[in-house]
Amino acid sequence: MGIERRSIVYDGPGGPFEGVAVVDGDWDTPRPGVLIVPNVLGEKEQDRVTAERIAGLGYAALVADLYGQGKRTTRDSPDPAMYMNHLNADRPLLRDRLFASVAALHALPQVDAARTAAIGYCFGGKAVIDLARAGGDVLGVVAFHGIFDPPGYDYPCPIGAKLLVCHGWDDPLATPDAVTALAAELTGAGADWQLHGYGGAGHGFTDASMTGSTRPGFGYDANADRRSWAAMTGFLAEVFG
Amino acid sequence: MGIERRSIVYDGPGGPFEGVAVVDGDWDTPRPGVLIVPNVLGEKEQDRVTAERIAGLGYAALVADLYGQGKRTTRDSPDPAMYMNHLNADRPLLRDRLFASVAALHALPQVDAARTAAIGYCFGGKAVIDLARAGGDVLGVVAFHGIFDPPGYDYPCPIGAKLLVCHGWDDPLATPDAVTALAAELTGAGADWQLHGYGGAGHGFTDASMTGSTRPGFGYDANADRRSWAAMTGFLAEVFG
Repeated sequence: MGIERRSIVYDGPGGPFEGVAVVDGDWDTPRPGVLIVPNVLGEKEQDRVTAERIAGLGYAALVADLYGQGKRTTRDSPDPAMYMNHLNADRPLLRDRLFASVAALHALPQVDAARTAAIGYCFGGKAVIDLARAGGDVLGVVAFHGIFDPPGYDYPCPIGAKLLVCHGWDDPLATPDAVTALAAELTGAGADWQLHGYGGAGHGFTDASMTGSTRPGFGYDANADRRSWAAMTGFLAEVFG
Repeated sequence: MGIERRSIVYDGPGGPFEGVAVVDGDWDTPRPGVLIVPNVLGEKEQDRVTAERIAGLGYAALVADLYGQGKRTTRDSPDPAMYMNHLNADRPLLRDRLFASVAALHALPQVDAARTAAIGYCFGGKAVIDLARAGGDVLGVVAFHGIFDPPGYDYPCPIGAKLLVCHGWDDPLATPDAVTALAAELTGAGADWQLHGYGGAGHGFTDASMTGSTRPGFGYDANADRRSWAAMTGFLAEVFG
């Protein structure tokens, strides 16, 4: 059958939600599973392609929907950040929707629920750090050009999920001060964390749609994209054992 | 013949110097070469073992001697840092001895001089960052728990060698402020640089002889050791092409 996409509708606070699972119909044993948390715009073609790359590694993938069925924006929307802003203003709700998405991943018949992880981009990078903070039922998380501000609620320590934070050092949304604050927070929380900082790279370094961006500190960076993906594959191999 | 060690005596300011080359006598074509710069104590068994691991990757290795033939210390020496302190106080001399060591690497018959790199530990990590700063003739450098203070001399920009800086975040010899200062320096110098920060790890995280250290911020860390070695192997594969 090969790798294929399937729409997955699942429940949660403010739902229903609609994600996209990518699995190989030929798999006959459960696989490690990876949740993919999209950027500000929500679930879209770019994330489905990422999910196919994850499936190509031999893992089941689910693109999460944190906004709700049909709630998506584009760069040309009147307010591209409208759904994200709602969750940024309510981090406990973000947490609970992440938990619902992890539950949907665990419910996929192709997934070994004891071996799952989450990756996320931009806002999704922030989300997966929150998932680790909040004790989400995953072995590890990888943030690509995420945002680091703490969630404002107490969370259980030590953090159980391992973290890999892939960061463009020129990212104006996550300054060096924010990096060192995150490092101190995660160390204080007893996490197993790693930071990969990429010199000369900015926000959105994995996002080919931002190639040629003229906004200072924003844009695609081929080196950081390739290196962070390689780091992620090594990280997932480690956490899945 | 298999992998074997050979003593290499070479010239330079304050020399002669005596390093140890590790190559496979069965190699019949030149290989990429890696200079290994030891920690405070200078060239020793631990570095030769590292060189053997490098040779196991298919690269020719040379353990550098920056102090001079016979000038070595141990942790039990009256002043273990005596030779290092001399070079820390004279960074142009450190640079020139690094250049002499790179020349010795390039002169090995097993080495493709167009494809070389340098790695270093602790003081050697600082040294390889200086080597990149100073325009040393290598494609890349990897620092393991290095020290980041700038060398105090002007150096040519942009920096040509790629840098991978593997850093234990709890290292008191390289504080978060020193990390962000190095990042700013390298960015300003136009370098292709990466920082891998390891949460909970301290100074000497690759050094098994520091296992069980009770000195805060110092000690071996198996996770950071394994992860940084894997990062180095990927980095060397990238720079050697």
